[in-house]
Amino acid sequence: MASEQSSTETEASDVYDEFETRVERISNVGNAAGILRWDQEVVMPDEGTPARAQQLSTLSSISHELLTDDETGRLLEELEARDLDDERAAVVREVRRQYDRETSVPQELVEEISKTTANAHPTWKQAKAEDDFETFAPVLEKLVELKREYAHHIDPDADPYEVLFSEYEPYIELETAEEILERLRDELVPLIEAIDESTEARTTSDDAALETDAFAGEFDDDDQEALARDVLDSLGYNWDRGRLDTAPHPFSSGTQFDARVTTRFEPEDLLGSITSTIHEFGHANYTLGLPDEAYGTPLGEARDLSVHESQSRLWENHVGRSRPFWEQFLPVARERFPELEDVTPEEAYESANQVYDDNLIRVEADELTYHLHIVIRFEIERDLISGDLAVEDVPETWNDKYEEYLGVRPETDAEGCLQDIHWSHGSFGYFPTYSLGSVLAAQLYAAAEDELGEQDDRIRDGDFGDLNRWLRENVHRHGKRYTTQELIERATGEEFTADYFLEYVDAKYGALYSLES
Amino acid sequence: MASEQSSTETEASDVYDEFETRVERISNVGNAAGILRWDQEVVMPDEGTPARAQQLSTLSSISHELLTDDETGRLLEELEARDLDDERAAVVREVRRQYDRETSVPQELVEEISKTTANAHPTWKQAKAEDDFETFAPVLEKLVELKREYAHHIDPDADPYEVLFSEYEPYIELETAEEILERLRDELVPLIEAIDESTEARTTSDDAALETDAFAGEFDDDDQEALARDVLDSLGYNWDRGRLDTAPHPFSSGTQFDARVTTRFEPEDLLGSITSTIHEFGHANYTLGLPDEAYGTPLGEARDLSVHESQSRLWENHVGRSRPFWEQFLPVARERFPELEDVTPEEAYESANQVYDDNLIRVEADELTYHLHIVIRFEIERDLISGDLAVEDVPETWNDKYEEYLGVRPETDAEGCLQDIHWSHGSFGYFPTYSLGSVLAAQLYAAAEDELGEQDDRIRDGDFGDLNRWLRENVHRHGKRYTTQELIERATGEEFTADYFLEYVDAKYGALYSLES
Repeated sequence: MASEQSSTETEASDVYDEFETRVERISNVGNAAGILRWDQEVVMPDEGTPARAQQLSTLSSISHELLTDDETGRLLEELEARDLDDERAAVVREVRRQYDRETSVPQELVEEISKTTANAHPTWKQAKAEDDFETFAPVLEKLVELKREYAHHIDPDADPYEVLFSEYEPYIELETAEEILERLRDELVPLIEAIDESTEARTTSDDAALETDAFAGEFDDDDQEALARDVLDSLGYNWDRGRLDTAPHPFSSGTQFDARVTTRFEPEDLLGSITSTIHEFGHANYTLGLPDEAYGTPLGEARDLSVHESQSRLWENHVGRSRPFWEQFLPVARERFPELEDVTPEEAYESANQVYDDNLIRVEADELTYHLHIVIRFEIERDLISGDLAVEDVPETWNDKYEEYLGVRPETDAEGCLQDIHWSHGSFGYFPTYSLGSVLAAQLYAAAEDELGEQDDRIRDGDFGDLNRWLRENVHRHGKRYTTQELIERATGEEFTADYFLEYVDAKYGALYSLES
Repeated sequence: MASEQSSTETEASDVYDEFETRVERISNVGNAAGILRWDQEVVMPDEGTPARAQQLSTLSSISHELLTDDETGRLLEELEARDLDDERAAVVREVRRQYDRETSVPQELVEEISKTTANAHPTWKQAKAEDDFETFAPVLEKLVELKREYAHHIDPDADPYEVLFSEYEPYIELETAEEILERLRDELVPLIEAIDESTEARTTSDDAALETDAFAGEFDDDDQEALARDVLDSLGYNWDRGRLDTAPHPFSSGTQFDARVTTRFEPEDLLGSITSTIHEFGHANYTLGLPDEAYGTPLGEARDLSVHESQSRLWENHVGRSRPFWEQFLPVARERFPELEDVTPEEAYESANQVYDDNLIRVEADELTYHLHIVIRFEIERDLISGDLAVEDVPETWNDKYEEYLGVRPETDAEGCLQDIHWSHGSFGYFPTYSLGSVLAAQLYAAAEDELGEQDDRIRDGDFGDLNRWLRENVHRHGKRYTTQELIERATGEEFTADYFLEYVDAKYGALYSLES
């Protein structure tokens, strides 16, 4: 008996090995495509596009074929019938999910969506440049229709928006996301109003207004780049596995062996380049914390968008926009920019945390109003997909919501509903993950401080070791081993909640703007 | 009848389209791998290697599978039975050749070679560093054996070295290559001796020796880079489809949409960086001349190594080491390096063309001795593969040949038979293409001047338009449409010959060193 059992075990192991080899191949093709995209954004010559588009399309179709091959299905079934350890079971769970999705959508529809978005992008760009929603409307209409059809193939019985959302967030219920976004809306709208009133009151009283111009001036690109490297040095970025470059739209990408950061420099926006660099560091730092030995399988890959965004926001907001950070970092910044000599850490802190009462543009928003930008997009795209909102009514609805939630009405569609690229990519259900990431960042940071003690002194000393080790231990090293909810509960002892985020902003902005609690 | 014929034509076209789609896929995978290799050499962080190795290995095995798939064989057979136009027939010819080679070698052998070379590279590096041939010998032995076996699979009846050579040069007979290399040896050995004698005679007479130190000094890296960009500007490099970076071993790579150049800067070797940049320009310029519309098929790919090297050598030697080039370029160089103020164009020309009488290192060789370095490697590797030379006898044979052909005997194996990386890659049959390229460069340049008139005045004016148009028209735009011999005959009206190279060096070095003709 013993020998028979052992031979069955060996066989099970053989099947798993075969499966894993297949999974690693798919992952390697995807990572190769990642390098090609990095190259395209960062170093590719202008006219390289036609060849690059073909290379990427080939890699994407090869990856699709490898995943949806009958052999993948057969291996999945065989493995699902066996008793696997937790890690292997997690790999099977993740691949099964992707397999089911990709096999359920007809390839012609995938290609039609891909062709339509390829065409939608320049149309959107032109419409935005010319402030002409009419031009973009038919393309948006078409994309909404195609994505509805896409969702229907995956699950004909489910709410199509839910299906689309789960493309980006497979293990967070849409209901949970919705509750969190509603709470953000309901609590941030009055908080921002209170801040506006306080700001107005100050301008007519003897109280000094908050400092908002600590970083006013023109700052040389090369010095900004040197400072961005200082930032990354001080946070402990592993240069042996990373690099810093510039890109028009900063991003980070790569694997645990090679996770790169990009940023951008504008002469009048030194603060923006610092916070954007810290944000991208957070993403790359997560990737670098994934286990080396699991490279090529879901156990060596990041848990979806909200968790990724939680890492970038944790470093950007909880560290990079904190008072002790500026106490530590301002002297470093002064070495590159002596003109900051007269700025105090408190002034830097205040400038890094000003709340804008009249900003229309999401990517320029502060830590509070940001979420209302997201809520508006979420409410609109959900209603677009459900059919409750017609494409032609988007501009009006958009402007009404801006007026209602943010007290400011866009005068053009270019700075209104045409401002973001996402819908032209056919990305519906993506926006919520931005807010969910910030909310999760607060929950994780609170759990880390709960275990490690308050981090302010550490941050003031430029010592991020404990915090990073906590994140490695509780988030990064698990890859996709746990579902998102499980990961959150294991790391924080609680379900996903907006409590910590709201506590954090209440405390921080209450103090900054001297609000009554 | 008419409609039937037309339906057969349509069908033929369908089969060809299917075939072409498959060929383009393979090509896209290969070009993606090319970007990954460029990235690895130029920008990848140090510790990215493990993931990169896996990505490249996956792409290489996918490419192999796509090529050797039964379906490729079936399509080839179908198309070979039909009447195709010349272009399609050429595509079929090229793919058939690769298909036959790749299907004839067992995949286990390919993998064993790949594993052995992966291991051979660090062993060679260590052996070279420690000047210890014994360490490298068993690996070299193994590689010789494996490559013999490899050749046997492809053609059991052929001379295995011939089979290996044809991997790099499918359409030049080994006999032709051998004749050319023998002629180079037989004519260059006495020419170099005469130059040595003339140099010696000058040092003991009143005649001034040739200027060799025009570029002595230390030159700043950044200024060298700026000058390398000037060089590329002046030659007409298309920056919209290219870029310049540094790499430890300069190379160029890419496609007609994106052909990049790398170079390197050493403080004491300004001349080396200029000539190396011109050399790599020649390679990239060939790639950029391949037709856009044929991207992804052999018609849009370069004709093998010797033709590629002919393009780099033509620009490096016939243009970049010419007297009129220095008349034109020295003022440009002086703007970056005012310390060159007192150098005359003639002195620059002489320094760029000095013949070394005691150099042991191939990559530092001049335009003449270079070929004896190649001949030595060719003779040794040919005898290694045939079994006429035992691995243990390589060092002695190497040193003897250096003494015989170049009058200088290496004192260590590190600067002897261990100096080059190629054999550790399992590349036997590659070296000859370096010399064949130079020889072909001279033949092409002579044909171009025959048609366009002498180019000296144009070069002196920095006008390379006619020359480049001639190369585009006669070489670049054809891709792999013609075999190498056909391409040479169409471009020059003659078979491949060393006549023009020998005429060129006799005339140039005869004048430089005042030899009696």
